[in-house]
Amino acid sequence: MEEIKRVTAIHVTTEEKVSKEELVIREVPFTIILNGKELVTLLCTPSGLTNLAVGFLTSEGLLQKKEAIKEMTLNEKGWYIQINADENAIDSEALSSHRLITSGCAGAASFYRSQDARGIASINSSFQISRDQVFSLMKEFQQKSSLFRQTGGVHSCALATSERIEVFAEDIGRHNAVDKVLGECSLKEIPTQNKALLTSGRVSSEILIKVARRQVPIIISPAAPTDLAIGLAQKIGMTVIGFVRSKRMNIYSVPERVI
Amino acid sequence: MEEIKRVTAIHVTTEEKVSKEELVIREVPFTIILNGKELVTLLCTPSGLTNLAVGFLTSEGLLQKKEAIKEMTLNEKGWYIQINADENAIDSEALSSHRLITSGCAGAASFYRSQDARGIASINSSFQISRDQVFSLMKEFQQKSSLFRQTGGVHSCALATSERIEVFAEDIGRHNAVDKVLGECSLKEIPTQNKALLTSGRVSSEILIKVARRQVPIIISPAAPTDLAIGLAQKIGMTVIGFVRSKRMNIYSVPERVI
Repeated sequence: MEEIKRVTAIHVTTEEKVSKEELVIREVPFTIILNGKELVTLLCTPSGLTNLAVGFLTSEGLLQKKEAIKEMTLNEKGWYIQINADENAIDSEALSSHRLITSGCAGAASFYRSQDARGIASINSSFQISRDQVFSLMKEFQQKSSLFRQTGGVHSCALATSERIEVFAEDIGRHNAVDKVLGECSLKEIPTQNKALLTSGRVSSEILIKVARRQVPIIISPAAPTDLAIGLAQKIGMTVIGFVRSKRMNIYSVPERVI
Repeated sequence: MEEIKRVTAIHVTTEEKVSKEELVIREVPFTIILNGKELVTLLCTPSGLTNLAVGFLTSEGLLQKKEAIKEMTLNEKGWYIQINADENAIDSEALSSHRLITSGCAGAASFYRSQDARGIASINSSFQISRDQVFSLMKEFQQKSSLFRQTGGVHSCALATSERIEVFAEDIGRHNAVDKVLGECSLKEIPTQNKALLTSGRVSSEILIKVARRQVPIIISPAAPTDLAIGLAQKIGMTVIGFVRSKRMNIYSVPERVI
């Protein structure tokens, strides 16, 4: 499915005004139907849609484990996926008592409950990474963003060992990009407890909670974290590294993992 | 209310690793209670919260007009606002038939219905702007972002005449920043039909629909639009200007408004 569309735009400079072909990122409404009920419509880039659906369900805590999924039917023409899952594995409390929560660009809709952070197990991973590995992973990460280079309109996310990127995804939404990566990890049974997650976006509490649910010990971003995300990370023992540039970075929590 | 928090981070370069005080943007969960019912919790920067609440209600189409608000009580300590409004002015269909929709960074929770775009009146404003005014407004806009300069963690939004910025807001979420500006316009009865809206974030369909509900004829961004946003803009007659840099820009729809 095409992730990019060609459009005609008027390119204006101080000297001229010319009609020009431009590449823009595609955005489609994609609905997850869980056991016959419309659960959510995500506005997203049309790629990795099955990963996105599975990642959303698990990283939002709605589905305890992907083994609960009995059947998935993706309909790309109608932009929806039908998922049948074991009712016992669905967190019905999360579904019924959810509070719609959002923070626009720094957030998205989540099935948020005040106990969200409390329900997350502390991260006890002994995974470590060197400062040079962080710089090198960020370089690899940024070079991989081909959709960004073409359209300027996406966020990217990756799961990496200390040495190299294993899973990579792009989307108009940074939450969606994270869910695509975590969903692929679920479906391919790729361990996340001894890895780092890279995100191009800012580290807000919602992103942190998604990543924490998968027990990823380190989150790395070229952008800023919020105070709420830092506080949660300190509480559960996740390492947050922000403002990673070519030769500098800030570590906001659990710095022992960076050697 | 403080929008910034001081935290201690480990600043790492290739040469050193030092403890350093850093400024980070604050993120709080802010709940809108409409006629006694919890409607939504927004993760946001704690400023302009009343504007944010009013902007959210009107730009999501839940409240037809701000005159329907009978009473507002903001509780900053508990991060909530109680709004009592005329039940007849609440779009109960929007409330009951809403589909949770989100696109992470490029989006946020919206009470989205497929007819959202169809329900929006075409924009017939005769407002025009010159290319130099666009460049000059973007310069003023970027200089105003003091929270961004301090924390690197926010988006900003402004409403401007062709000459100058009238309303300005910042938030960790780009949707919230837009809602803060539109809410302030509602409360202060500032006309929006003959103005341009500037946003630091990408122009996705949700942002476009919020802005279109207020009949703003021009949206200006330093970032990229999506194909869905461009399509909607062409349909309703809104001018979308993206990738505005110091001396160039792209016009994606209704270029006649740029003279």
